[in-house]
Amino acid sequence: MASSKTKCIHSLLFFLYLTSVSFPTFNSLVYLWPLPKQLTFGNGTVAVDPSLSFQVQGVAHTSAILEDAFQRCKKAVFNDRSVIARSAAADYALSVVKVVVESADETLQLGVDESYSLFVSKDDGRSIIGEATIEANTIYGALRGLETFSQLCIFNYETKSVEINSIPWYIQDEPRFPFRGLMLDTSRHYLPVNVIKQIIESMSYVKLNVLHWHIIDEEAFPLEVPSYPDLWKGSYTKWERYTIEDAQEIVRFAKMRGISVMAEVDVPGHSRSWGVGYPELWPSLSCTEPLDVAKNFTFDVISGILSDMRKIFPFELFHLGGDEVHPECWNTTMHVSEWLHENNMTTRDAYQYFVSRAQQIAINLNWTPVNWEETFIAFKEKLSPQTIIHNWLVAGICPQAVAAGFRCIYSNQGLWYLDHLDVPWEEVYSADPMEGIHDKAQQKLLIGGEVCMWGETADTSDVQQTIWPRAAAAAERMWSTREATSTANLSSIILPRLEYFRCLLNRRGIPAAPVRNFFARRPPTEAGSCYSQ
Amino acid sequence: MASSKTKCIHSLLFFLYLTSVSFPTFNSLVYLWPLPKQLTFGNGTVAVDPSLSFQVQGVAHTSAILEDAFQRCKKAVFNDRSVIARSAAADYALSVVKVVVESADETLQLGVDESYSLFVSKDDGRSIIGEATIEANTIYGALRGLETFSQLCIFNYETKSVEINSIPWYIQDEPRFPFRGLMLDTSRHYLPVNVIKQIIESMSYVKLNVLHWHIIDEEAFPLEVPSYPDLWKGSYTKWERYTIEDAQEIVRFAKMRGISVMAEVDVPGHSRSWGVGYPELWPSLSCTEPLDVAKNFTFDVISGILSDMRKIFPFELFHLGGDEVHPECWNTTMHVSEWLHENNMTTRDAYQYFVSRAQQIAINLNWTPVNWEETFIAFKEKLSPQTIIHNWLVAGICPQAVAAGFRCIYSNQGLWYLDHLDVPWEEVYSADPMEGIHDKAQQKLLIGGEVCMWGETADTSDVQQTIWPRAAAAAERMWSTREATSTANLSSIILPRLEYFRCLLNRRGIPAAPVRNFFARRPPTEAGSCYSQ
Repeated sequence: MASSKTKCIHSLLFFLYLTSVSFPTFNSLVYLWPLPKQLTFGNGTVAVDPSLSFQVQGVAHTSAILEDAFQRCKKAVFNDRSVIARSAAADYALSVVKVVVESADETLQLGVDESYSLFVSKDDGRSIIGEATIEANTIYGALRGLETFSQLCIFNYETKSVEINSIPWYIQDEPRFPFRGLMLDTSRHYLPVNVIKQIIESMSYVKLNVLHWHIIDEEAFPLEVPSYPDLWKGSYTKWERYTIEDAQEIVRFAKMRGISVMAEVDVPGHSRSWGVGYPELWPSLSCTEPLDVAKNFTFDVISGILSDMRKIFPFELFHLGGDEVHPECWNTTMHVSEWLHENNMTTRDAYQYFVSRAQQIAINLNWTPVNWEETFIAFKEKLSPQTIIHNWLVAGICPQAVAAGFRCIYSNQGLWYLDHLDVPWEEVYSADPMEGIHDKAQQKLLIGGEVCMWGETADTSDVQQTIWPRAAAAAERMWSTREATSTANLSSIILPRLEYFRCLLNRRGIPAAPVRNFFARRPPTEAGSCYSQ
Repeated sequence: MASSKTKCIHSLLFFLYLTSVSFPTFNSLVYLWPLPKQLTFGNGTVAVDPSLSFQVQGVAHTSAILEDAFQRCKKAVFNDRSVIARSAAADYALSVVKVVVESADETLQLGVDESYSLFVSKDDGRSIIGEATIEANTIYGALRGLETFSQLCIFNYETKSVEINSIPWYIQDEPRFPFRGLMLDTSRHYLPVNVIKQIIESMSYVKLNVLHWHIIDEEAFPLEVPSYPDLWKGSYTKWERYTIEDAQEIVRFAKMRGISVMAEVDVPGHSRSWGVGYPELWPSLSCTEPLDVAKNFTFDVISGILSDMRKIFPFELFHLGGDEVHPECWNTTMHVSEWLHENNMTTRDAYQYFVSRAQQIAINLNWTPVNWEETFIAFKEKLSPQTIIHNWLVAGICPQAVAAGFRCIYSNQGLWYLDHLDVPWEEVYSADPMEGIHDKAQQKLLIGGEVCMWGETADTSDVQQTIWPRAAAAAERMWSTREATSTANLSSIILPRLEYFRCLLNRRGIPAAPVRNFFARRPPTEAGSCYSQ
């Protein structure tokens, strides 16, 4: 068991060590994705023993999350291969990774400490630490360190051993932003639970930490809602559905990888599918969107959905949509238009009334509401100050939102909407959520960004290659420092690193698309190496 | 332990039972893929107990292959879901599958008995057999039956139980052809071992039984050959390689699923990559294909490769290529042209000499040689009579080959080359390997067919959706009877079944492409259900 004191000593020694070697120069190609905050490396090689074990020190020694992560890490490192423990090319066989975690608290929330340090050396009497060591304040930091460790391990086809080159490695790492998201849309196409899990697993490889689950939209309502059991009659078929247990399993699976699930119930627009089970939610049978603002039943249903979902989704953020509300039906449907008149409301007032009432339901359930930017543009002064604004339409929204005191998530559609196939990786990579925000206090309100995988033309057959490799470009932007990821040398430094990482995804079974094609998810144009396509 | 006698009684009772219900009408939509040879079903429902176990009777009770298959079957049936054992909609909970296997022989070769019968009923005193029972002569028949069983099991989202509808089921099944192949090309693009395993796993869902591994071609030589260790210097990079152990693992993984691996070493053309490690295999440094026919070293290397590969690939068939040989370099390279002159050979003679000498090496290693059809067209009288002719170029080759006494594999490129993206599923489905072969004895020489996934534009990112769902169409053609798979009602009967099966692949995590697009592997064109795209 390592005490805090021990950790301080380690850190001090690390620091001394750092001073004795060159500080990182990011001109060297470091094949880690995303790039750690600070690193140094040497020129030695160590072979990784196939009997590699993980020794937990500190308070987290009984963590099921860590145990599971160790198994995944071993699988990533050895890939079910028989490898040779000690090779001629390596000076030493590494057989233990020490994992030191300070806190026993496994709560996963926005801003959880994901920092870690990773040290890998050979035990030849000259270096201070004998094994690989990961130190972190939380198990989630340790998960990030394990991912980095697994990327350092390379199978050498000549020696048939797994090796770590360029030792000693000293890495000190933490994310640039606390919110690093990927959105999935399971309404335009249903994605089976297995497929969502594959995507969550691949998210963990690039240290993304929020799955924004856009579960429901106008086309389909796939989620079971016990309070209103007819809602999922709005699913495409009786097989394209998620039970409560499915949703719980997705949340559990994500948490094991340090990924939170932010669910979305988009109101009052994008909701036509709700009325398949409960037609009274439609203004009328012929005018079916937005949800009927005039009926209390509408808010009873929202309250029922959110209460049921609160039991599944522990993440403190909940997305209430609020985008693209076209209120014509409210004007043209007799009873709604009468209600507007009685309440002396314009449709814009009714939109604000609807959003605010939905926000209050979420807040009462101890959720922080997230809304797409239209709500901010339309009536920022009426939004709960807790609201997190989710940018999508245009550049420059987050600077306005944080200037008004709101927190903001960046998803500029021209750059970070993955269904926009004509945005090549360089543009995704070069986008910066912090653009236009210069005030230090305001910068803190920009909690991160998210790439969005809208599902009109993305189903199980192509969703992964639409996501990857471009989501990796955004993930590095959100994790790594601006200094380390300068866009000055995109083609000479970033491109070969990204090509290498795309091939790593492929080796792990993820069908990431070629990097160099201008259009996303296009097949390779000719025979050739993965590392140059 | 069931004796043969018991089995006879079962079969007799099955027969009696069959006579009491209507014989299969294939007008009913049976959501099994490929369709079994003979089946009847009723109108009951049984819930499958989540504690489902498999009880092996007969000699195979210690088979590791069966044990592994049971685990996979349970995973396919329950999909890691918590399900309810007994539901209101079901009359009975099925908790045991009896698996009766007659032979302890686990040898997997061409023509291995893959027949099975599957009976599922409820134990209500009226039916004779209480549980689900699979009977087979070999474990490989049992594997096919387990796959069929897993496809009968459907998760009911209302009751949250896994159910088998339309019981009692009685299915008697066997393949139409003994050779049902899929070819993978790992030279034009390297496919990681993980990805090849995913493909093998998905092959087992449609009862394909041969992976034709086109390992090497002119672009890259990824395989380790201990006798000539520089050969894999012809790989794209030091990471795009297969070790001996990788190849063994692929063979092992495939055998667990009843799938043989037929390796290919294509000579004398398609071989430029060989010379990266051994330039003396090229006629000259400026003229690098076909392999130098004039040097004994060339045949020493082939002999070394095949001897090394014999230790890995137990399947009795070995593919020697022989296609697209352009002999210009033999004419234009001085020492080769002199050698031709000395030996009084034309380049066509030399082509025959090369193929025959390579065949002899394979035959001496107890392999049955397979050659692409060009060898048959060029010099059928000089081919070893053991040769299996592999059709690809044109229709009508197999009828000629079997008339000449050769065995034949059908892969008409216009219909069964999966890289031809403009061949929609209906054409793949309607192709028939037996076309033009009417003589019963000759029909026996047509051992089956193979869909070919050439890799110029297929890598990890798109190979699965290029293969699926069209390979499933060919797989049903090769497994099911012609009567059961009439093409008279493609859109009313086959299409909904194939759409259903494509969604089953998706649910199992396989990114099979939409069925209805004319061009293969295209994304869905709009939002909608998997079951109608």
